[in-house]
Amino acid sequence: MSSIKKINHVAVVVEDMDKALRFWRDTLGMNFKESIEIPSEASTVAFLPVGESDLELVKPTGQDSGIAKYLAKRGPGIHHLCLEVDDLMGIISRLKQAGIRLINEQPRIGQGGRQYAFVHPESTGGVLVELYQSD
Amino acid sequence: MSSIKKINHVAVVVEDMDKALRFWRDTLGMNFKESIEIPSEASTVAFLPVGESDLELVKPTGQDSGIAKYLAKRGPGIHHLCLEVDDLMGIISRLKQAGIRLINEQPRIGQGGRQYAFVHPESTGGVLVELYQSD
Repeated sequence: MSSIKKINHVAVVVEDMDKALRFWRDTLGMNFKESIEIPSEASTVAFLPVGESDLELVKPTGQDSGIAKYLAKRGPGIHHLCLEVDDLMGIISRLKQAGIRLINEQPRIGQGGRQYAFVHPESTGGVLVELYQSD
Repeated sequence: MSSIKKINHVAVVVEDMDKALRFWRDTLGMNFKESIEIPSEASTVAFLPVGESDLELVKPTGQDSGIAKYLAKRGPGIHHLCLEVDDLMGIISRLKQAGIRLINEQPRIGQGGRQYAFVHPESTGGVLVELYQSD
């Protein structure tokens, strides 16, 4: 059975990146790797490594993306949980067979060529879950 | 500087534990360690190890606890992020000095003698953060 390897990241949507970094990096003392603007996802993302995972702070740069709408509707906070898997297609197939609602029924290709798919929170008990194909 | 070691767990509040386990364990394929009733926290918690972290599914057993009220108000989903730290007192002191609002200004003693403290989401950008003292 295809398996879940680790938490790849926890994504937090923020209204003010400078303020967020002052808390997570400067006050709490988390490591900071880099901050990248990702035009294809209409967001700026700061990566804060923590053990084998990252905390990702995501600030929408437009108003039309899913994450911008989430921020407008629900306010800042944890946006999604990303689990790293060793067989994304196998898991997608298993989820579909079980009637789980997927946001992406086929893997999407993101930053750096990584493959991922989101599972709809309706089928997970309110958690937006990203599945990420490990190398 | 005291440091953040890893994500200890991500806690998800659930309405129906059987249904939650059917998704996370049986369909998604996560490992399952155990399910424990914790009377002092008025909840049942299922532990699903993932890499160096756990996903914790938390079902309130009463109606008066913070997590029961959260569930009633916001619905099921991610409740908090727990970071493991090597110097809980040092971090609490640093947070206080920076004017961060803590739910627990002194460490609390939980299940198995572990020490922890919660940071109020008002000071973190909407994320309820638990800090957990590693051994």
